[in-house]
Parts: sequence; C-alpha cells; structure tokens
Amino acid sequence: MDVFECYFCKKTFPLDPYNTFCPTCQEPLLYKAPLTEKKFYLHKEHTLEIMLDFLPLTEVNHDLSLGEGNTSLINLKNFEKRFQLPSIFAKNETVNPTHSFKDRGTAVAIQKAVSLGFTRIGTVSTGNMAASTAAYGARAGLKTFVLVKEGTQREILISMGIHDPLLIKVKGDYGRLFRRSFSLGKQNHIYFSNSVDPFRIEGYKVTGFEIFLQLNRHPPEFIFVPVSSGGHLIGIMKAFQELKQYGFIQKYPHFVGVQAEGCSPIAKAFHKGKSKVKRIEKIETIAKAISNPDPPGGNLLLQMIKRAGGTILSVSDEKILEAQRLLAELEGIFVQPASATTLAGLLDFTKLKKLKSDSTIVMILTGSGLKATQAVPLSSIRVLHSTLSELSRIIKSVSSQTS
Amino acid sequence: MDVFECYFCKKTFPLDPYNTFCPTCQEPLLYKAPLTEKKFYLHKEHTLEIMLDFLPLTEVNHDLSLGEGNTSLINLKNFEKRFQLPSIFAKNETVNPTHSFKDRGTAVAIQKAVSLGFTRIGTVSTGNMAASTAAYGARAGLKTFVLVKEGTQREILISMGIHDPLLIKVKGDYGRLFRRSFSLGKQNHIYFSNSVDPFRIEGYKVTGFEIFLQLNRHPPEFIFVPVSSGGHLIGIMKAFQELKQYGFIQKYPHFVGVQAEGCSPIAKAFHKGKSKVKRIEKIETIAKAISNPDPPGGNLLLQMIKRAGGTILSVSDEKILEAQRLLAELEGIFVQPASATTLAGLLDFTKLKKLKSDSTIVMILTGSGLKATQAVPLSSIRVLHSTLSELSRIIKSVSSQTS
Repeated sequence: MDVFECYFCKKTFPLDPYNTFCPTCQEPLLYKAPLTEKKFYLHKEHTLEIMLDFLPLTEVNHDLSLGEGNTSLINLKNFEKRFQLPSIFAKNETVNPTHSFKDRGTAVAIQKAVSLGFTRIGTVSTGNMAASTAAYGARAGLKTFVLVKEGTQREILISMGIHDPLLIKVKGDYGRLFRRSFSLGKQNHIYFSNSVDPFRIEGYKVTGFEIFLQLNRHPPEFIFVPVSSGGHLIGIMKAFQELKQYGFIQKYPHFVGVQAEGCSPIAKAFHKGKSKVKRIEKIETIAKAISNPDPPGGNLLLQMIKRAGGTILSVSDEKILEAQRLLAELEGIFVQPASATTLAGLLDFTKLKKLKSDSTIVMILTGSGLKATQAVPLSSIRVLHSTLSELSRIIKSVSSQTS
Repeated sequence: MDVFECYFCKKTFPLDPYNTFCPTCQEPLLYKAPLTEKKFYLHKEHTLEIMLDFLPLTEVNHDLSLGEGNTSLINLKNFEKRFQLPSIFAKNETVNPTHSFKDRGTAVAIQKAVSLGFTRIGTVSTGNMAASTAAYGARAGLKTFVLVKEGTQREILISMGIHDPLLIKVKGDYGRLFRRSFSLGKQNHIYFSNSVDPFRIEGYKVTGFEIFLQLNRHPPEFIFVPVSSGGHLIGIMKAFQELKQYGFIQKYPHFVGVQAEGCSPIAKAFHKGKSKVKRIEKIETIAKAISNPDPPGGNLLLQMIKRAGGTILSVSDEKILEAQRLLAELEGIFVQPASATTLAGLLDFTKLKKLKSDSTIVMILTGSGLKATQAVPLSSIRVLHSTLSELSRIIKSVSSQTS
C-alpha cells in the first residue's frame, strides 16, 4: 500500500487518486518510499527498473513505456571556455519520446494508473504535459482527457491532438480548472495526473538519480532547473534527499530554480523571504512552457529549498532568448525558451561569483526547440542567397572572411 | 589509413574527402574495415565506442558528440493485435539530438572531419541533414556551410539556422548542386558530408548493430527503412553484411526500402528490374524528407538489395498520412510523414502475405513529427470546447459514450 506524506505537517495518508493534497495544509502530498534497503539495478536497461527500489512500482510494464529517460549528460566544453566556468553539463531531456522531461512523470503515472485499474486518465496542461499524456495514454490504450486553455498554439495542439485524446479547450480561469479536475476525475473515474501529481514527481526524481550515477556517484555542486508549477524541481530535490537519507551522498547540491521574469511568483516570494507564493495576475513571457501564475507546488518548493539550501532566480525574456541562441551556436543544442532559462540563470549567477573553480554544474534542458519554433523570429536567421553559378564566388568570399 | 571500395568494380582507393565516388563507375565508395577480429565493447556507454571495431575511428572524442544513438527498440503490441502481425518493433530514431537518424551519420562524419584536421564542413540538404550538420558543426566549433534549396520551410530553416551556420539558399538544380559541392569543397578546404558520404554511411551502420544487439544477437526477419538518397538503408544493409562476414549471423534480414509514390525513382527501377535508377522530373509528395528525385545512392542500393535479398516499395501520400495517424493513435509515437512510410509499406506488404507468424519485424522511424507539423491539417484534430461550468456535463457525456 503506497503511503503519502505532507512535507509540512508530516501526516501520512493512503492513496486517494482524486485528491493528492493534504486535507489540513492544502499542499501537495509526496510519495513516501518504505524504509527498506535501496540499491540501483545497474544491469537493467530501463531507467525505471534501475531505480525500482526508490519508486512506487513493483515492476515496469514495458508495453506502457515509450523508452523514456536514460538521457545524455553532455559536457559543455565550449561554455566552460567562453565564460571561464568550472565543469558544466547539460542533462538533455529534449530526447525523451515526446521531446520533453514531462515523459518521465507521465511514464510513472501511467504505470500506476494501469496497475490501479484505471481505464481513463487526464491532465490539465497547455503544452508539454498534454502532449506527453496524450502519447502515453494512446500507447496504454486508455481514454485520455486533455484539458487545455483557449488560445493554445497550433504546433502544440497538433503535437497532442495527433494522438486523438479527448481534447477539450476550456474557457475560464486555469487555476480553478486545475482544482476542479480532481472532482471531475472522482465523478467520472478519471485519474488526473496534473503537474504536482505525486507519481509524476516520482518520475522526475529519476532524473536526479541518473545525474548522480552519470557523475560517478557524486552529486553536482549546482543544479539549475526551470520552474513553473514546481513539480520538476521538487522531484529532483526529492531524489537527492533520498540519496542522502540512504547514505549515498553526504551533501546536497545547491538547487537553483529559474523562472521567467514575466511569470515568476515563486522567485518573488523567495526574494521577499515569504513562505507562501502569491498568485500573479499578468503573464508576459516568451517562455510559455513555464508560465503558471498560480503554481500548486510553489509553497512546497519554497519550503524544500529553504531546508536543503538553494535559490530561486528569475531572468528576462531578452536573456532567455540570448541563452537559447548561445546554446544552439556554441553547443549545437536547440531548446525551447523555457529550458534556456537555466543558462540565463547560470550566467547571472556567475556574476554573483558564487561558483567555485572546481564546482560541477548541471543544467536541466527540459524541452526541444522544435516545440516552439515560433519563438524564433525568421528575421533573426542569417541566410545568404546564391545561384549555382555565383556559388563559388560567394563561398570563397565567405571563407576568406572567416578563415 | 582508411580504405574505400567500389561495390561494383571492387577497386579500392585511399581517402579523398573531396571525391567519394568511384572514378570508374561513378558510384559511391564504401568504407572497408580492416580484416581484424571484431567485437562489441558492451561495457562502454557511447554507442560509437561499443561498435568501435567496425568503424573508421580509433577513438571517440566526446567533445564532438551530442549523445546520439542508443535509441529504443519499442515493441508495438497494439499493432500486433490490431493487424494480427507477428513481433513488430519500432527503432525510434526521433529521440536523437536533433530528432532524426541523420545525427548518427553526422556524428561519425564530424569525428573524422576533426581528426583529419578540417576546420570547415558542409552539407547539401533541404532538411534533417542540414539541421543535424549545423548542430554538430556548432558543437565542434567548425565553420559549417549549409546549402539548401529555395523554398525550404520555416520550421526547417529555423531548426538549422538557430545554430548560425553559413546558410546559403541556392537557386538551381539540386542534383547539380550536390555534385558541384565536392569541387567547391576542394577549392575552399570544406569537407562536404552529403547523403552518401562513406563516413555518414558508417554512422547509419551503427543502427543495424544496435538492432542486432537489442534483439539478443539475432537479426530480425524484416527491416523497413524509408528511402530517399539511399544512404540510410545502404548503411543498415552494410551492418548486417559485416555481421555475416564476421560470423555473428548466418542469414540476412529481408530489407524493405520504402519510398513515397510521388518521388520513387528507386522503387520504379526495382520493379522494372533495372540496374540503373532514372532521375524523375516531378516531385509530388508530403514526405518531403525523402523526396530526392536523383538519388546518388540509388544504383548502389539496387545492387545491394539484389545480392542480399530485399524489396523496394512505394506508398501513396494518403497511406502515409493514415500510417502517421495510426502510429500516433495506437502507439503514442508522432513521426514525420517520411517515417510513416515504413508502416504504410508494412501494411501493404502484409497484404502480400509475405510475413510468417513467427517473424520479427523492425520499422525504422527516422524523424520526429515536430519537424513537419504543417503536414497535419489543424482541421483533422478533434477539439471540444467548453466553459468551466459546462465541463462536468461535457466530460460526463463523453465518458458515457466511450465507456
């Protein structure tokens, strides 16, 4: 029997898939793994099987998997040189099956939904999580309810709609829709796996374990993660908490959550030293994938960051777009603006001189640039024009300029 | 010293990076691995290091890699049930760093280019290969020349242009541009790694080795691969030839190349029993990533298919789009139309009753659907509309229809 705990009041609860918030504190509950010996099954191929001891799963049903996880940790040597940084790595979550980190959460949620006998799942999302849930729901043969905002962009609508879920555009307040989804789930036997679903957070935890193993069983000194609802960073922090709890590490990384300035309720609360996040009214950022004005995991994240040590920053759209370019031009990685916040945040952080020369830094790149090509103006792409006969002259001229 | 061989006249040649075609036969040369003992280094993490004995590399420079390869082989149980098929697997190349199989070829070409001392690379491509080369060129810090056709689509232009290569739109015949690129390369010290570059083909070979290892050291009975210039399927066939040559397997898979009907010069030649591919004049297909009317590897592919056993099919756009939907709806995998040709081809092939009940089939899914969202009409996506207050009624009504 899975047990869930409130991080605030420490009460534990059995599973209620229709209410994953503490009845007292109203904060998201977290899965509490039984206190048995934990090890990594390194001879296994599937990342969820390697981490099985830490997860709320007894086995992994491969028929529900799309091969998520096991993503590369790429050393960014060009950045190290250009910005005189210590060791810096990108955890490339854009190579997940639907090209974002959301697949890790969905993968665990779907395993649980099926093992609990659900035939209907759902999510409230405006982008990556909707595409991911629609894909995994299709793979599992479940009826999949995807509730999105009016005004969701074409590319995004297609990436979820192609899997033919029950796709509903809902007019009205997004925060209310989020809360309403649980009662709708209860009435209609739909398991709504939203942003801070505890099983989803268990999936994000796996990213933390992979980083630990990829760094030869060392925690990095710094981990930069984009922050929207809070679930992703909560999952990664939980991974390192459990690594410490079970004696795999002695010291936490310094966790740095990065929000877009145009939608940064958690960063605002952090800098004011508040323990509660205040909903913001106006969203204005190009980083649409991390623009939750009323983040359900906000208070929990603030509390966890306070205890483990860490920072929540915000960065401007200008710096986000500059960072997106830098990643593409210097390291060949094309990410969506939401992911580029990590690099923008790191470059700001560096100015504060908080990095030591022997630090290891990990940036989590959450989603592919192909998910938001409209964020890149065509006018910003340098293109030369030539005929076949002019080509030799043009290439010669460009080569001599650049050699 | 690397040796290259003509498959037709069997002559061997030393490396000339500015001319990778046989001076006598005018056909693409292939890399010939020295006849030393070969093994797989399974304790290594990087796929190129696992396969090193078979590759024209003495080591793998991780600073040039983006973590390509090691892609999932996904069992498609829902297809097996729906179409009463034997074991069927998808090799999901969409999770490569730039979301297509091209990264495998580019990865090897870049390793070679840098080890040979090149500071400039180039490619002639209208899509996936250009994006891949621009990304790897950026990562390697090389000047990267990307020659594309006029009229290349916005999404595609951005996915290559974001890496800031020297991007040149060239007006004029694409086949002539392909051939011209080698002399331009020679004049300006640019290594042009185009579609049938022998090092690129060595990268595609790795996919064949991975499939063999993932199927517990057995070859599948059938492998379906989309075909454009021919390089990808040539590489995969070469993998199984070498596996046979070195005693790892006794029997070849049946190779099935699939072209889009609206651009199927190789399929046409195959069905007429010709040994030479005739250039076609008019291209008309939605599968733009495989629309080479004058495929430089066409004759070589025909010859290899003839010797190893295999088939080249073509499928209509209608069937391609239907297959794209089926993959997304039944298995949760969103591919570009070019990749869906494999499933369309398989379903046609099944009607010919050529599959045995205990066969293992592998389809190679070459590129992500996010690369061509414009191929999916928004009108084909089912969307319901609701307000917050209507939502309960709508979900109840949809649920009762579908339960």
